[in-house]
Amino acid sequence: MAKPFNRILITGAAGDLGSKLRKGLAPLANHIRLADRTPINDLQDHEEGLVFDLSDEAATIEATRDVDAIVHFGGASRERVWNDVLDSTIRGSYHIYEGARKHGVKRVVYASSVHAIGYHKLESHIDTEAPVRPDSLYGVSKCFVEALSSLYWDKYGIETACLRIFSSFPEPADRRMLWSWLSYDDCVRLVSASLTASHVGHSISFGLSDNREKPVDNSKAGHLGYVPQDSADPYRAQVEEKTEPLDPKAATTRHLGGWFVELGHPDDEGS
Amino acid sequence: MAKPFNRILITGAAGDLGSKLRKGLAPLANHIRLADRTPINDLQDHEEGLVFDLSDEAATIEATRDVDAIVHFGGASRERVWNDVLDSTIRGSYHIYEGARKHGVKRVVYASSVHAIGYHKLESHIDTEAPVRPDSLYGVSKCFVEALSSLYWDKYGIETACLRIFSSFPEPADRRMLWSWLSYDDCVRLVSASLTASHVGHSISFGLSDNREKPVDNSKAGHLGYVPQDSADPYRAQVEEKTEPLDPKAATTRHLGGWFVELGHPDDEGS
Amino acid sequence: MAKPFNRILITGAAGDLGSKLRKGLAPLANHIRLADRTPINDLQDHEEGLVFDLSDEAATIEATRDVDAIVHFGGASRERVWNDVLDSTIRGSYHIYEGARKHGVKRVVYASSVHAIGYHKLESHIDTEAPVRPDSLYGVSKCFVEALSSLYWDKYGIETACLRIFSSFPEPADRRMLWSWLSYDDCVRLVSASLTASHVGHSISFGLSDNREKPVDNSKAGHLGYVPQDSADPYRAQVEEKTEPLDPKAATTRHLGGWFVELGHPDDEGS
Amino acid sequence: MAKPFNRILITGAAGDLGSKLRKGLAPLANHIRLADRTPINDLQDHEEGLVFDLSDEAATIEATRDVDAIVHFGGASRERVWNDVLDSTIRGSYHIYEGARKHGVKRVVYASSVHAIGYHKLESHIDTEAPVRPDSLYGVSKCFVEALSSLYWDKYGIETACLRIFSSFPEPADRRMLWSWLSYDDCVRLVSASLTASHVGHSISFGLSDNREKPVDNSKAGHLGYVPQDSADPYRAQVEEKTEPLDPKAATTRHLGGWFVELGHPDDEGS
Amino acid sequence: MAKPFNRILITGAAGDLGSKLRKGLAPLANHIRLADRTPINDLQDHEEGLVFDLSDEAATIEATRDVDAIVHFGGASRERVWNDVLDSTIRGSYHIYEGARKHGVKRVVYASSVHAIGYHKLESHIDTEAPVRPDSLYGVSKCFVEALSSLYWDKYGIETACLRIFSSFPEPADRRMLWSWLSYDDCVRLVSASLTASHVGHSISFGLSDNREKPVDNSKAGHLGYVPQDSADPYRAQVEEKTEPLDPKAATTRHLGGWFVELGHPDDEGS
Amino acid sequence: MAKPFNRILITGAAGDLGSKLRKGLAPLANHIRLADRTPINDLQDHEEGLVFDLSDEAATIEATRDVDAIVHFGGASRERVWNDVLDSTIRGSYHIYEGARKHGVKRVVYASSVHAIGYHKLESHIDTEAPVRPDSLYGVSKCFVEALSSLYWDKYGIETACLRIFSSFPEPADRRMLWSWLSYDDCVRLVSASLTASHVGHSISFGLSDNREKPVDNSKAGHLGYVPQDSADPYRAQVEEKTEPLDPKAATTRHLGGWFVELGHPDDEGS
Repeated sequence: MAKPFNRILITGAAGDLGSKLRKGLAPLANHIRLADRTPINDLQDHEEGLVFDLSDEAATIEATRDVDAIVHFGGASRERVWNDVLDSTIRGSYHIYEGARKHGVKRVVYASSVHAIGYHKLESHIDTEAPVRPDSLYGVSKCFVEALSSLYWDKYGIETACLRIFSSFPEPADRRMLWSWLSYDDCVRLVSASLTASHVGHSISFGLSDNREKPVDNSKAGHLGYVPQDSADPYRAQVEEKTEPLDPKAATTRHLGGWFVELGHPDDEGS
Repeated sequence: MAKPFNRILITGAAGDLGSKLRKGLAPLANHIRLADRTPINDLQDHEEGLVFDLSDEAATIEATRDVDAIVHFGGASRERVWNDVLDSTIRGSYHIYEGARKHGVKRVVYASSVHAIGYHKLESHIDTEAPVRPDSLYGVSKCFVEALSSLYWDKYGIETACLRIFSSFPEPADRRMLWSWLSYDDCVRLVSASLTASHVGHSISFGLSDNREKPVDNSKAGHLGYVPQDSADPYRAQVEEKTEPLDPKAATTRHLGGWFVELGHPDDEGS
Repeated sequence: MAKPFNRILITGAAGDLGSKLRKGLAPLANHIRLADRTPINDLQDHEEGLVFDLSDEAATIEATRDVDAIVHFGGASRERVWNDVLDSTIRGSYHIYEGARKHGVKRVVYASSVHAIGYHKLESHIDTEAPVRPDSLYGVSKCFVEALSSLYWDKYGIETACLRIFSSFPEPADRRMLWSWLSYDDCVRLVSASLTASHVGHSISFGLSDNREKPVDNSKAGHLGYVPQDSADPYRAQVEEKTEPLDPKAATTRHLGGWFVELGHPDDEGS
Repeated sequence: MAKPFNRILITGAAGDLGSKLRKGLAPLANHIRLADRTPINDLQDHEEGLVFDLSDEAATIEATRDVDAIVHFGGASRERVWNDVLDSTIRGSYHIYEGARKHGVKRVVYASSVHAIGYHKLESHIDTEAPVRPDSLYGVSKCFVEALSSLYWDKYGIETACLRIFSSFPEPADRRMLWSWLSYDDCVRLVSASLTASHVGHSISFGLSDNREKPVDNSKAGHLGYVPQDSADPYRAQVEEKTEPLDPKAATTRHLGGWFVELGHPDDEGS
Repeated sequence: MAKPFNRILITGAAGDLGSKLRKGLAPLANHIRLADRTPINDLQDHEEGLVFDLSDEAATIEATRDVDAIVHFGGASRERVWNDVLDSTIRGSYHIYEGARKHGVKRVVYASSVHAIGYHKLESHIDTEAPVRPDSLYGVSKCFVEALSSLYWDKYGIETACLRIFSSFPEPADRRMLWSWLSYDDCVRLVSASLTASHVGHSISFGLSDNREKPVDNSKAGHLGYVPQDSADPYRAQVEEKTEPLDPKAATTRHLGGWFVELGHPDDEGS
Repeated sequence: MAKPFNRILITGAAGDLGSKLRKGLAPLANHIRLADRTPINDLQDHEEGLVFDLSDEAATIEATRDVDAIVHFGGASRERVWNDVLDSTIRGSYHIYEGARKHGVKRVVYASSVHAIGYHKLESHIDTEAPVRPDSLYGVSKCFVEALSSLYWDKYGIETACLRIFSSFPEPADRRMLWSWLSYDDCVRLVSASLTASHVGHSISFGLSDNREKPVDNSKAGHLGYVPQDSADPYRAQVEEKTEPLDPKAATTRHLGGWFVELGHPDDEGS
């Protein structure tokens, strides 16, 4: 049976999640182009490797040539100083979308983050249409890309699924992850669903496994067809064993962004 | 164990869905009265056949005598010229409700349609309380019956479950049906649930299988107790094989009503 | 200064409201075509009179020729037997919209009614997007025209402002009208605003004066630019003098539709 | 593996639900303190028994000493005369919260009731943030404790999960329970989840099994991680066999509170 | 012209607001019965004085005899120790409603308070249907009466307008009152409107003047017909002169309840 | 009487709106610092002039020293090529907020734009919490600053009022401005209100005059205390005289952003 795509571009492909996506998305495309600042040495036959920085406009645009879909997981993956956030996520993502526009790429799956909405409280039970409320420069840059991709959908017809990834780790590492965990396998499922959904337009989705505790409402992303199959619950006993109960009044407990809400300004550090 | 109903009337019983309902509803009633403009030749012992047109007021009212519930699937089943829509759905359904009122029938299950809301966009993620937005004269006539049945509930205490059937076909035939499909078996489940729910009042429900892609919100129909068991997903590969990806900006892709939003006026054709 | 319209058609022009509209809309058009089943004898120079029944398809369509906008106040103006409702409002309004479509009329202002939503309770504080809940066959027919006009907007680009007129009388006649009154002058203001608003699309609006008691929320009709200038309040003392306090638990008190919710079926009367 | 709590206090422990909770919560605590007005005779090694009335301030506060969590199921369990409601639920619960405040108890699970919202209609499909609408003095007292516990969370950081228990019986006993049933086992699951959820704050939750018919929306309690595993559906046939269909227009059918909406005033009885 | 009421009972009549209501409501009733724990010495001809404590069941019920409406402003008017709150507001208001039920009083206007919702934030822009979130025992007792009056409406047909009075003072005394002020005259207007509105049922309303800064949404109380005529704005300069700008992150600034959110527990004081 | 502020910084002070703000805000501050890339030659005694580009980090931060509030109207004022948008609005606004953080400025009033939400339709009647939907790179950059300022409020306590200015021109110039106009005087009123409101936090507001046609809902900005006093209505006749009626189905008519939704990509032009 024919694969749905001829060629997919994955940015940030050398990272932890990137390497999971390399394998997980293989059934969806004849060719997978892997882009990162760090070279990838174990390229498979169906894979192409590209090494460049997203802030390099020409290289980034060139990387999108002959591509059917982009899985854009590159850029800063945690809080960083402003200039890094600016170059890698803001300028870098603009280059990605310009590439998509110039080369006719029809769909993008973007790794946004819970940190775009990190200052919302759990008690607010927000859905995917709540206003943004970032908890870091990293989060602000995710808001920028969500807005940018909205423009490229409305004006240029390029579909984007923005996945607000919560806590994607090998396993739940603290009590917050009992509700915020996204297993690597579910992350791959979410990206796959977003690539193959019959209609995406501009979508915002929460990237979460099927954890028993569900503080947010993902129902408006139902059209993506994402069905998580993992849960933090089997790890509950081991997490509780290793960690203290959460302080219920702590800002880090009450806000979706967790400890990001207490991070200082990145430009202040080391000064 | 006693059956919940003594006699059910099914209108439109000679159609594809009607014949599925004949079998599927048999466990619910001692007698099933089958009404259609076309005679049914293979009547079973527990079945009664009636041949008449819904525009015939006297015949329609008479057909509701001694009936405990009505499964009203008759009337135009697709876009038709105005006079047909008027006679079969508007006038015909008025006759059905007058029959119910005069003969004390307590519950009606009505085959409404996605085309009552066909001009809503997928991106709006509507629920069952969104304003109507029909995409055809056919859809307008469904809105009429939904409004009429609301009156007969509020004023006369006749309960109606309006089922907005999306795409009820033997199997998903195009990419839109990956989210819009309602299997025949699930359609029977939905009608059965609507007949036996402990409280219906006036309900609007979306008739959909448990497809992975879910662009609409059916939660306010939860009191009906409908639990779909089929999904379009097993047909995904074959559908994708046979059909092109949807044009994401096409009106037919973006609206719930699909290609109905591009139909011309039925009275113009052949003129 | 040029008038905004060359020719407006008013249906139901011989009625009480119609005669107010004749005068009130005069500043908006060079010619006003007045249609009714009853002849109008005092035609002014800028007025044209047409006598026909809305159920007459050819006459109705012909009446829309060379018209820039239609103020559709014709059809049954209170609860009537089904055949009258069917002929005058359902069939008649279809003829009006077919006329608009065939003759390129761009905007319709339609006299819908509170009775399209009469079974909603005051305590629900509904807005103009609440589901319909008619209290009479009259109300059901208003729902039909609202749905029909939605189709003609979405599919054919004919704008309609549906005005759900509450209680349009010379002055408030009972305690319910302390909140439900629409003065004749405000009714003319509402129609004028709907005719001249820069963008109407398909709009639902509540037709109410600026009464002190406001049980419903008209804010989603704000784009029409209707600013009521009358109020029931100056009539409060005289209304209270003449009438008993409302029974707070009575169905007629609690529902928007007032005494319509206790009307019997019109086809039962006199039989 | 260590248990999550050292000592839990259960009030109302001698009742039907209380005895289920004694067993069901045993895995969660080293010690369980059982409080009731009625002595409990079969205390297990890990159990402590206390006999007192909740209206006894000193005894109630003392009972909360050295306790890590309180499962507050004591107080009037059905409609009662005002003085009983006042003493057992209003004054008694105040004593419980003062005990929690003075002794540093961090979390309370409270048995609220559907009767705090009994006058809402099924057709309203309410969620857990709808305004209260009690159907009895019993229900009013539940509203009081919900408000009181909200204060103790916001001001003193004591978390409370208010469980609005619908119909917790050994099995569904009438047709209303086809949607309102909460099995004893699911009740224990709901309390356990509320005790162990990573973040509770002040939560309102509907206590219902996974019944097929779902007239209310529990999604805003998703953070509790309650996953019901029972359903009224296997009992449907036997319930239908023994009971008449509901009268669809009866107040007891239409309101969440069932027959409580038709109870007279408790202080009038026997007078 | 006849006055709308023969006799009104005002509780808490000796207080500041009470004395304004004595004068302000005089045009509405032939007789005004003034109740307070403190005697009133300057009774006018149309006034009757009663001295009793609301915790006295018999006296309170007797005070409601031959009364057409009750303006219930008695009970604790600020944070108090629990036993005072319990006796004056909780028990006292129960006595008032039992009096209304036994003596057929049809409407109550109740002085609820912003402190029933004091822990909501300004940024939440709540409306009158938001869940309660009291900031004090005083606030909890207001929630109790709101719930109690809801029951007496739904079950016994006694209408109540619950007025959540914000800051009713002679003039705005601090910067919070730039948005929270309710002038005495507007308070009288609000009570008058609530007494004379054509339909009240059970209503929640925010008691605020027409201040320029409006952090809450009172639109669902529009049926009461309250039109404030005062504003804090003329006092702005003098308030700013005398007071420091608010600390934007202070809990007292961010919550509707102001400094109540930082009050300690009343039972702790002086102990 | 003392002025509320000692020193205000206005960026973009040489522009049309800037020069109105210079005069309009004079009553609010002892000193007004005027910043622009273009020198201002007619400085008054209470004014200080600074000439620099917002992309100059050091100069921008320095400009915020000893400032009590910032009125940030600088940056690109219409669609521009990406590098201009990036430098002037994205980088420039980051510099402003870093200046505010480093120099303890407590409040910012930011000139956001309707073009942050330009792809929403009029028919959606959005309020200020709707998701962003920009119609241009200019609009995307406004979304960025809205998100950035949200972070600086939540994390650093710097209040910002984001004013989504619709059409601020000397007078309404086309039919869209009949609803989208913001007079210069009302713009000054909106900025003044935002500077002096008792609590701002992070606010989004629609900048519109009191035009009769109101397609959007500004009620959640009510805490700012902005009361517009101008209206497009007196200009209606002259606008209608000079312009054609809007094409009701045109994208420019249906979307809030007007003709921005049909702008091409700025980087494509002239290249």
